[in-house]
Amino acid sequence: MNFKELCEDLSVAGYEFYRRGWVLGTSGNFSARVTEKPLQICITASGNDKGALDETHFLEIDDNADVLQGFGTPSAETMLHLTIYRMKVQVGSILHTHSVWGTILSDACSANGAVEIEGYEMLKGLAGVKTHEHTEIVPVIENSQDYIALSHVIENVIRENPKVHGIYLRRHGLYTWGKDIAEARKHIEIFEFLFEVLGRTTARV
Amino acid sequence: MNFKELCEDLSVAGYEFYRRGWVLGTSGNFSARVTEKPLQICITASGNDKGALDETHFLEIDDNADVLQGFGTPSAETMLHLTIYRMKVQVGSILHTHSVWGTILSDACSANGAVEIEGYEMLKGLAGVKTHEHTEIVPVIENSQDYIALSHVIENVIRENPKVHGIYLRRHGLYTWGKDIAEARKHIEIFEFLFEVLGRTTARV
Amino acid sequence: MNFKELCEDLSVAGYEFYRRGWVLGTSGNFSARVTEKPLQICITASGNDKGALDETHFLEIDDNADVLQGFGTPSAETMLHLTIYRMKVQVGSILHTHSVWGTILSDACSANGAVEIEGYEMLKGLAGVKTHEHTEIVPVIENSQDYIALSHVIENVIRENPKVHGIYLRRHGLYTWGKDIAEARKHIEIFEFLFEVLGRTTARV
Amino acid sequence: MNFKELCEDLSVAGYEFYRRGWVLGTSGNFSARVTEKPLQICITASGNDKGALDETHFLEIDDNADVLQGFGTPSAETMLHLTIYRMKVQVGSILHTHSVWGTILSDACSANGAVEIEGYEMLKGLAGVKTHEHTEIVPVIENSQDYIALSHVIENVIRENPKVHGIYLRRHGLYTWGKDIAEARKHIEIFEFLFEVLGRTTARV
Repeated sequence: MNFKELCEDLSVAGYEFYRRGWVLGTSGNFSARVTEKPLQICITASGNDKGALDETHFLEIDDNADVLQGFGTPSAETMLHLTIYRMKVQVGSILHTHSVWGTILSDACSANGAVEIEGYEMLKGLAGVKTHEHTEIVPVIENSQDYIALSHVIENVIRENPKVHGIYLRRHGLYTWGKDIAEARKHIEIFEFLFEVLGRTTARV
Repeated sequence: MNFKELCEDLSVAGYEFYRRGWVLGTSGNFSARVTEKPLQICITASGNDKGALDETHFLEIDDNADVLQGFGTPSAETMLHLTIYRMKVQVGSILHTHSVWGTILSDACSANGAVEIEGYEMLKGLAGVKTHEHTEIVPVIENSQDYIALSHVIENVIRENPKVHGIYLRRHGLYTWGKDIAEARKHIEIFEFLFEVLGRTTARV
Repeated sequence: MNFKELCEDLSVAGYEFYRRGWVLGTSGNFSARVTEKPLQICITASGNDKGALDETHFLEIDDNADVLQGFGTPSAETMLHLTIYRMKVQVGSILHTHSVWGTILSDACSANGAVEIEGYEMLKGLAGVKTHEHTEIVPVIENSQDYIALSHVIENVIRENPKVHGIYLRRHGLYTWGKDIAEARKHIEIFEFLFEVLGRTTARV
Repeated sequence: MNFKELCEDLSVAGYEFYRRGWVLGTSGNFSARVTEKPLQICITASGNDKGALDETHFLEIDDNADVLQGFGTPSAETMLHLTIYRMKVQVGSILHTHSVWGTILSDACSANGAVEIEGYEMLKGLAGVKTHEHTEIVPVIENSQDYIALSHVIENVIRENPKVHGIYLRRHGLYTWGKDIAEARKHIEIFEFLFEVLGRTTARV
């Protein structure tokens, strides 16, 4: 898929996530890999309404976050996307959402350092998971505005937990990924569903 | 109705269920009987987004789950559909959803082996129920990836509970059915409504 | 407005209510007064999907519930509509919904015989209410399948509580009305909003 | 932007808020500044369905709330809008919503005189906030039907809390603003998201 097609599919994902309240107030950001070598990605420019995206709201950037195409500024979180693409060559898309239940759950589970999800059929929606008898770990990382430091933390966390399908920045939001946009979007839906189930049953304070 | 028309009506049901968050992450599957003798059904192929279905996402299969028409693979759960169609000749459609409240409730009620619903007007939306003074039993079956074993369990449960309108796989999802797609869809809506009512009032942990 | 126009406006109301989950599974019914003397109303026929109504799903009936126009059967609850129209000549529309929070709240408040709502700005959305310092009583009536008996109960309750804007059948649903469809629809929205607020804060069990 | 364009953007905001249940039952009101000197604004006329607005549902008024253009009556709350525009010359739009979680939270927090929100990434969606390590105060003002008195209270509260992005009328609703409609709408979404998070975790009674 070319830049334009990737932007279209990410825009549809944005529309659906906005409708469900997962990217309110221009929050969230979405990207897809355009080429692998050299690494080039398309990513939402900073500050746009994620429910009404079109091609003009996306940037094409290279591995240094230099803009190759498009108008606007890459958000500070672009670095987190690039970090993940560099580590995981098979990743074709990264999606980041902010949901009510994810926020609540990440806070409730932060003492454990992770959200642990076990025994649900919906886990089979995560790539490579073949049975509900699976324990999925979603590491919860302390939120920070120092995105360089955060990139390093994420790099370490992913290195130490190579099987995770996503990470959570506490009281901030979910990062998940997939081989393509469809798989990454599926992972968002699976995690948000499970976060709501766990939030409603275990995150009460 | 022919294959094409059944696919259209199942696609509309899928769109509505997706909008309500009952088939997120490509979860769920939907089928309708095309012919009774020999048994032939149309059923969603594995792995598609249930909110954006069209005819190309359905398979026509026979009683052995051999594909007669369409592209893609039948999901492992196709066997559960066939089991129910074989036992209940009057069933014209089977729908399977994964909802947050159903998941929570199936877990909370699993010790009893069933969700018991009693005294709600909405129960009259289930075929043959004429009064709110009715006790509806939704057997809760332990989830499994062994679909052959699961088919046998379901067969036994339905044989022992011939009046049920649906069964629940614990922490997985609801199977319900009806004489046609409209009735099966109505049953999904009635059960999901009642699961939310019961979940919000009794399933707190 | 003529029969056709009334059906159109009731269909739009149905679409919105369905979207919000207040008339799932073909539940609910909607009516509007066509003529005052003799009393003639249009009302949803029994058993249709309330999210996809058009003129063909409505009946025009007279004071005896005899069908003057349209196809299908009046639901048993038609009697409740006629009872209210007879008692309240200024009522132009009656709407009946089944919501999760209303169901929960009607149950929690049934010992008091009423839902009491006090001190909310949204109360000003009810016709004639000029301040949030108002106590709105929504009588909760025991549900029954004997609609003749229920009509008499409703008649008495409305006579004893002439200022109410709606009544609730326990574990069943809300009846509210207005001078026209817009006002009745506004009343549904106001009540359902307040039921959710009260349900979330006071109806926990 | 001219009157017509402002009305269009406010109508889109109304549609989205209605869809999310934040302006049910014709509640809420929306305005934007047309000219600064003399102060002229466009504002929703009283009593319309906020989910189906068009240009005909807006008034253009001057600093005395005299109608310069449009049909209908300014709502009593127009005075609150004018008070805020007079105090804050940089404000281009004011939006007012009634949500379930805001209502619940304003009640639970009224003893403190404010909703305090701290430590959430979503706070960065408020203009000028650069880090999640921020404490946002939303003053909770006692609701009143005396809008002259209420204007004075709001004037004092804003003078004493010049950095706030919004105020809450207890059991009534949120007023927030921005340099333009997009920013005000973003603030509504940010606050409503955070109210839900706080409501679900701390406002239980």
